[in-house]
Amino acid sequence: MKDYIIHNEWKIIEDSFHPAYNKITESLMSLGNGRIGHRANFEEKFTGETLQGNYVAGVYYPDKTRVGWWKNGYPKYFAKVLNAANWIGIDIKIGNETLDLNTSEILEFRRELDMQHGHLSREFIVRLPSGKKIKVVTRRFVSIVDSEIGAISYTITALNFSDKLTLSPFLDFDIRNEDANYDEKFWDEVEVSVKPGEGYVVAEVRKTLFHVCAGMKINILRNGIKCDFSADVENRTKFIANIIPLTIREGESVTIEKIAISLSSENYPKEEMMKTAQNHLNSAYSKGFIQLEHEHSQAWLEKWKTSDIIIEGDIAAQQGIRFNIFQLHQTYTGEDERLNIGPKGFTGEKYGGSTYWDTEAFCLPFFLATAPIEVSRKLLKYRHKHLSKAIENASALGFNQGAALYPMVTMNGEECHNEWEITFEEVHRNGAIAYAIFDYVRYTNDLDYLAPNGFEVLLGISRFWAQRVNWSEEKQKYVMLGVTGPNEYENNINNNFHTNRIAQWTLQYTLGTIDFLKKNHPSLYQSLIKKWQFNEETETDLWHAIIKDIHLPYDAKREIFLQQDGFLDKNIKTVDEIPAKERPINQHWSWDRILRSPYIKQADTLQSLYLFEDQYDKKTIKRHFDFYEPLTVHESSLSPCVHTILSAAIGYKQKAYDLYLRTSRLDLDDYNNDTADGCHITSMGGTWMAFVKGFGGMRVQNGMISFSPFIPHNWNSYAFRIHFRNNVLKINVLKNTVCIENLSDNDITLLLYDQQQIIGGNMKSEVQLKHDHHEI
Amino acid sequence: MKDYIIHNEWKIIEDSFHPAYNKITESLMSLGNGRIGHRANFEEKFTGETLQGNYVAGVYYPDKTRVGWWKNGYPKYFAKVLNAANWIGIDIKIGNETLDLNTSEILEFRRELDMQHGHLSREFIVRLPSGKKIKVVTRRFVSIVDSEIGAISYTITALNFSDKLTLSPFLDFDIRNEDANYDEKFWDEVEVSVKPGEGYVVAEVRKTLFHVCAGMKINILRNGIKCDFSADVENRTKFIANIIPLTIREGESVTIEKIAISLSSENYPKEEMMKTAQNHLNSAYSKGFIQLEHEHSQAWLEKWKTSDIIIEGDIAAQQGIRFNIFQLHQTYTGEDERLNIGPKGFTGEKYGGSTYWDTEAFCLPFFLATAPIEVSRKLLKYRHKHLSKAIENASALGFNQGAALYPMVTMNGEECHNEWEITFEEVHRNGAIAYAIFDYVRYTNDLDYLAPNGFEVLLGISRFWAQRVNWSEEKQKYVMLGVTGPNEYENNINNNFHTNRIAQWTLQYTLGTIDFLKKNHPSLYQSLIKKWQFNEETETDLWHAIIKDIHLPYDAKREIFLQQDGFLDKNIKTVDEIPAKERPINQHWSWDRILRSPYIKQADTLQSLYLFEDQYDKKTIKRHFDFYEPLTVHESSLSPCVHTILSAAIGYKQKAYDLYLRTSRLDLDDYNNDTADGCHITSMGGTWMAFVKGFGGMRVQNGMISFSPFIPHNWNSYAFRIHFRNNVLKINVLKNTVCIENLSDNDITLLLYDQQQIIGGNMKSEVQLKHDHHEI
Repeated sequence: MKDYIIHNEWKIIEDSFHPAYNKITESLMSLGNGRIGHRANFEEKFTGETLQGNYVAGVYYPDKTRVGWWKNGYPKYFAKVLNAANWIGIDIKIGNETLDLNTSEILEFRRELDMQHGHLSREFIVRLPSGKKIKVVTRRFVSIVDSEIGAISYTITALNFSDKLTLSPFLDFDIRNEDANYDEKFWDEVEVSVKPGEGYVVAEVRKTLFHVCAGMKINILRNGIKCDFSADVENRTKFIANIIPLTIREGESVTIEKIAISLSSENYPKEEMMKTAQNHLNSAYSKGFIQLEHEHSQAWLEKWKTSDIIIEGDIAAQQGIRFNIFQLHQTYTGEDERLNIGPKGFTGEKYGGSTYWDTEAFCLPFFLATAPIEVSRKLLKYRHKHLSKAIENASALGFNQGAALYPMVTMNGEECHNEWEITFEEVHRNGAIAYAIFDYVRYTNDLDYLAPNGFEVLLGISRFWAQRVNWSEEKQKYVMLGVTGPNEYENNINNNFHTNRIAQWTLQYTLGTIDFLKKNHPSLYQSLIKKWQFNEETETDLWHAIIKDIHLPYDAKREIFLQQDGFLDKNIKTVDEIPAKERPINQHWSWDRILRSPYIKQADTLQSLYLFEDQYDKKTIKRHFDFYEPLTVHESSLSPCVHTILSAAIGYKQKAYDLYLRTSRLDLDDYNNDTADGCHITSMGGTWMAFVKGFGGMRVQNGMISFSPFIPHNWNSYAFRIHFRNNVLKINVLKNTVCIENLSDNDITLLLYDQQQIIGGNMKSEVQLKHDHHEI
Repeated sequence: MKDYIIHNEWKIIEDSFHPAYNKITESLMSLGNGRIGHRANFEEKFTGETLQGNYVAGVYYPDKTRVGWWKNGYPKYFAKVLNAANWIGIDIKIGNETLDLNTSEILEFRRELDMQHGHLSREFIVRLPSGKKIKVVTRRFVSIVDSEIGAISYTITALNFSDKLTLSPFLDFDIRNEDANYDEKFWDEVEVSVKPGEGYVVAEVRKTLFHVCAGMKINILRNGIKCDFSADVENRTKFIANIIPLTIREGESVTIEKIAISLSSENYPKEEMMKTAQNHLNSAYSKGFIQLEHEHSQAWLEKWKTSDIIIEGDIAAQQGIRFNIFQLHQTYTGEDERLNIGPKGFTGEKYGGSTYWDTEAFCLPFFLATAPIEVSRKLLKYRHKHLSKAIENASALGFNQGAALYPMVTMNGEECHNEWEITFEEVHRNGAIAYAIFDYVRYTNDLDYLAPNGFEVLLGISRFWAQRVNWSEEKQKYVMLGVTGPNEYENNINNNFHTNRIAQWTLQYTLGTIDFLKKNHPSLYQSLIKKWQFNEETETDLWHAIIKDIHLPYDAKREIFLQQDGFLDKNIKTVDEIPAKERPINQHWSWDRILRSPYIKQADTLQSLYLFEDQYDKKTIKRHFDFYEPLTVHESSLSPCVHTILSAAIGYKQKAYDLYLRTSRLDLDDYNNDTADGCHITSMGGTWMAFVKGFGGMRVQNGMISFSPFIPHNWNSYAFRIHFRNNVLKINVLKNTVCIENLSDNDITLLLYDQQQIIGGNMKSEVQLKHDHHEI
C-alpha cells in the first residue's frame, strides 16, 4: 500500500516527484478516449524508471504461445495489446544539455490528472547540471470529441539564463512491447513523411497487418504569441522528428503545441491512411489547441452530469469513486461494437487481450445504469458476433453439436489464454455471458434482444453445459468434473457450486427464452430451430433432467452450499490466522500450498449468492457470508465489490465500508502492489456496483428499480444518478433522509425500502433513512 | 507402429535406407558407455532428416525456465542435457563432389548395431550425381573399457573411377541443442589446437562453466596398409579439422581411422584438460583401432555372460529383450556416483535432466539382479547425497523441520520441472525413493545401509508425508489433498490411493528402521537424533496416528480401492470404446477431456498392488486388475511392465505376453511414435522387470529368492541369470520343465513355486513346469 497521491475531490495529484513510484503514477494518470490512450509518460526524455505506453484500441499482435509444456487444445497465440507510436515525445535541449528529470535537480514538481475536465498537466522547476534553471508547464489530453486526436502544450521558461533552445517533437514507432513472448518487435514501417512543422509515420503490425498512422503538427509560441519557426527534419526507420532551433532569453517563455493524430486501418482503407490522417489533422490543427481542449472538457462536464457520484465528508472515498468512473469512461464508450473493455484499458499492456468475463460480470451494470442502452447492447452483441468462434473453441476441446465455450481472454473471439486449469476449466465464464443477457433484459426490458441474438448465445451455452456435465452412477446426480471456479486458488475441482448453479440457471433461463420466442416470435423460432438444428424435445428433456438433478454440494450441518466436493476436507482456518508478512499469499506461498489451503481468492460461492440473491433468504445469505468471507483473501481486484454488496444486504455496514474503500482505492493506494503495470480497469465497474448496489441498495425487482440505501457513519451525504429505462433518477442520501429525484418528464414507479412509490416527472420524493433496514 | 527393423537375435538391422525414419534409426542404434555416447548419425555430411547428438554424462546447461504463467515455487532453470562436440564427423569429397546420402543414388545400404560386441557399422554403395560409384564400409564404437575413447574406421572404395579424394575429419563444438528454451548456443570456446593428424577443442558450458575437451587422431590406410599423409588444417571458432588431400584409383580402398577422446572437467582440472587429453589419446592411439575394438568387444561379451536373457522360438521377443538390456548397460555402469539414468540415456536430448523416479521404480531391480551390489548402492547414495537439496526443495514449497521432497527431475538434486501439477503435486516420487531403500535392503540384505544413509533419507521423506497430510474433520481421517499420482491423466486430485498408501508404508518402514537402529546402532542413532533434531516421541506419535487413520478411498460394492476421491463420479467406460483413430488419446484429445475421462495413463492403483503385492491376496489383486486394466491406455512407457507382472501373477498369461511384447519392442517398433527423439531408456528397466518378475515370477520372500515361472505358448524356452546376494543363478524354462542352476560355489535355499529348495554349489535342480500355478 502506498500513500503519496494527494487526496482531492476532482484531481489525482502528485505534488513532488516520486521517481520510485513513477510507473504507478504513469498508470494512474493515463489518458484515454475509448479509441486511443496512453500512460502518463513525460514528453521530454527521461532516463529513470518508466514504462512507455501508447495504445490504439483493436490493434493487436498474435504473439506465439509460450508454455513450458504443451497441452492439447492450447491456442496458437496470445493477442497482445500493442504498444504503438510514441506521439507525445518532445526532446528538449538547452544549449548542449538535454532536459532529463533523472539527471536534473528538481526544485518544484507537480503532476496532476484533472478528472473533471479530462486533462493531464505538469509544472516543474529544475536546475540542470550546468546550473541553468527552467520552469516547465505542460498540459495534454486525448479528445473525447474527436477520438483520433490528442494535443499537448509544453511551455519552457528560462529562469536564470539565455541560451540556444532546441525542441525536437517526434513520432516513434520503433518501440517494443514489454509484454512480448519472444522479445520480437511487432511493427514494420510502411511509409513516412516529414517536413518542417509536421510529419507522419504509417506502420504495419506483423502477422495481423493492421496499419496505424500517427501524425503531428507543430506550433511554436513565444511568450504566448504564435511565431514562425524553421526546422530541420529527421527521418529514420519508423521514426520522424522536427529539430527546431530557437533561442530563449532569461524570463522568456517558449511554448510548443503538438497536435497529433492516430488512425487505424480498422476504420480506413490502408492505401489512404496517410492522406486521411493529413486531412483530418489539418482540420483539427486549424481549430487550435485551446478550442480543441475546450470542446473536450465541455464533453467531460457533460459525461459527469449523468455519471458522477458525490460523497460528502470523505475525500478519499470521493476521489476513489470518481477515479473509477473516469477510467471506465476513458476505456469504453460503446461507439464501436468491435471493441471491449481491456483489463488494463489504456494504462498498460499486461494481460493482453481485450475481453474477459469481467466485462459481463463487473462492467455491464455500470454501463446499463449510466450510459445509453446502445452501449450495453454493443457489449452483448460483441459476444453474439463471436458465437461461431465460441463454437469452434468448444469443438477444439471435443464438444459438438453447436456447444459454445466463450474464451477466457480474447481479442477477436478466439481463445488466447494458455493455462489448462483456466483455459479449459474456468468455464463459469460461459455462465457470466448468459447471465449478462438476463441482466440486460431485466434492466432495460429490451426483450426482443432475445430474438434472436440472446437466444442464439444462450442455446450455444446451454448445449455446452449439457455436454459438460455427466451422469454419476455413484451419486445418481449430474456432476461437473474438472473445473476452476471464480476462486482461482482451486484448480480442477469437481462440482464447483457456482459453476453448477449458473449452468443450472442458464438451462432454466434458456427454456424460458424458448417459451418467449414461441409465444412472441413463432416463425423466427421455427427458423432458428432449423438454423441451429435444434432438436427441442430431446435437448430440452436433458436440460430439464439436469436442472432437476444437478449435484450442488451442501453441508447439512452448517446449512451451506459447499464451494466444491470435498471442501470440508481442508484444514479450515480463517484468514486472520495468516501472518501479515505472508500476505498477499500469492506473493509468498507456493502454488500447491495455496491450492491446498482453504483460502479463497475471490467471491465464488458468494458470487452465486450475489447473482441469485432473490432465490435465497437473508439468513441463508448471512450463513454463507459468515462462513466464506473469513476465508476470503480478496487477492483478485474483482472480489471486494461482491462482498461489499452482500455485506450491505445483510447489515454488515462497517464491513461493507471497509471492503468498498479497498476496491475503490485499489489502484490509487496500489493495494496489491501491481499498479505499475497498469490500472485494474474492469474492477472499476465492480467498484461502481459496490457503491450503487451496496450503499444505494439498488436492485431491479419485478420490473421496477428498487433502492434501500444506508450511509456509512463517517459520510455526510452521497448522491448518484442512474438511467432506468425511460427515466433518469438522482438518489441523494443524507444522514437521515433519502431523496429520490425524477429528472425525466414521465412518472416512475419504484421501490424504496420495499415500499412502492410513484414519483412524477421532475418531482422528488424524500423519506426517512431506515438505519435498521438491513438488520436480520 | 513401424516395422522396418529386421528381426535378428543379436543385431538391430536396417537393410535399406529409410530416410523418413532416419531419426528413429539414429536413436535405436545409439552408442554409449555410461560416460559418453552419441546417436547413430552418419560420419559424412548428410543434408536429409537427422538429429545430431553427442553427449557427455553429467555436463548440463541450466536453461532459464520457460513458462506461460509463473507459479510461486517454480525452479529457476531446467537442466538440459548438452549436445556436445560432434567428434564423429568426416567430410568426404570425391573430385569436387561432397558425399551426401541425401543427394546420391543409393544402390545398397545396410546399417547395423551389433549388440553382442557393441559396435555400429554401415555398408553402402552409392552413385554420386557425376555417376561415380563408391562403396563405403564404416564401423565405430565407444569403448566400455576406456570410457573416454571412441573410434571410427571408415573405408571408401572407388568402384568405377579414379579421382582426387579429400577427407576432412573434424571436431565441432559450434552446435545447438534442439531442446533449448531460448534458442541460445550453450558452448563457448576455451582453446583449440590442430596440426596434421590430430586436433583438440576445449569448450566451456555457459553458466555452469563445465569444460569439455574433444580430441582426435587420424590414420590413413590404403588397401588396408597404413600410409603417410599430408593435411591442411582448418581452425575456426569452436571447430578444427584436417583437410587431407589424397587420390584414389578405381578398385582401390582408402580407410581413415579416427580415434577420439572426450574429457570432462568433472574429472580433471580445467587447466590440464588439453594436456590430459593429448596424453590419454596418444596412449589409446598407440594401441590402434583393432586392439581398442578387441578389448571393447571382449568386455561386452563378459557383460552378456551375466545379464543375457535367451528366448528360443520368438526372434522378435529375443531382439527386444536384448535391445533393452544393451541400452541399459550403455546408459549406466555404476562407476560414478554423480551420474544417474537419464530418460533418454545417450540417445537424445528430450526431457533434459538425468534423474526421474523411474530410476528407483523401474531401473533399480535390473541393476540389483544383474550388477555388483555397488552399482545399486551408488544409485541409492545419489539420493542420499541430494538430501539437503530435497530439504531445500520442500522448504521452498512451505514445508519445514527437515521435511524432504525429492525433485521430479534433476541433474544435481535441484528441481528442474515446471508444471505445477507435476512439480509440486506428483509427490509419490518421494515414496518411490523410500521404497527403493526397502527394495535394496530386501534384495541384498545390506541392512547397514540404513545406518545412517537409508534412515536419513527415510526420515526426511516421512517428515514430508507427516506435513503433507492434514486432518479432515469431515472424514475424521488424515487426507492428502492436491496430488497427482503416477497416472498423470489426473491432476490435483485428493487422496490418490497410491500416494496415500506409499506414504503410510513409508512411515511404517521408517518406524521399523528406527527400531533397527536402536537395537543395532544405538549410539549412531543418538547422534542422528541430535543431527536431525528428531523429536522421536512427538513425531512418531503423529506417524502412528497417520498410519492408523489415513484415508484410503474404497468402494465397498466392488471391493476395490479407488484411484482417488470421487473416481466413481466419472463416466466409467473402458478403453475399447475409444475409436482407434483417437488413440493415443494424448495426441488426439484436449487435456481437459483426458482429465475428465476415466482413462489411466499408467499403473496407479495397480502400482501399489504391485509394490505391496504380499499384503493383498490374489483375488483382491485380480479384482483390481479387472477394474483398472480395461481403463488403462498405457500411454506411458512405464505402464505395461507393471501390468505384465500383475497379469502373470493372476494367471492372465496371454495378457502378460501381449503387454510384455509392447514394452520390450516399444522403441524398436516406435509404438508411441516418438522414438525419433530418443529411446525410452528407463522403461527398459521395466521391460527387464516384466520379464523376470512376470514370466520368471521372481520375488524376494522371507529373505529368499523365489520363482514361479511360466512360458508363453509360442516360446520353446527362455533363460536368464541373476545375482542374489552371494549366488549367481541361471534359470532355464522349457516347455515343461524349469531348471535352476546355481553357478556359485555355495549352497542356496530358494523357493520354487512356493516350495523351499536347497541347491548346492554348482548344482542344478530341475522340476516340472506348473502350468496352472497362477490360476486363481
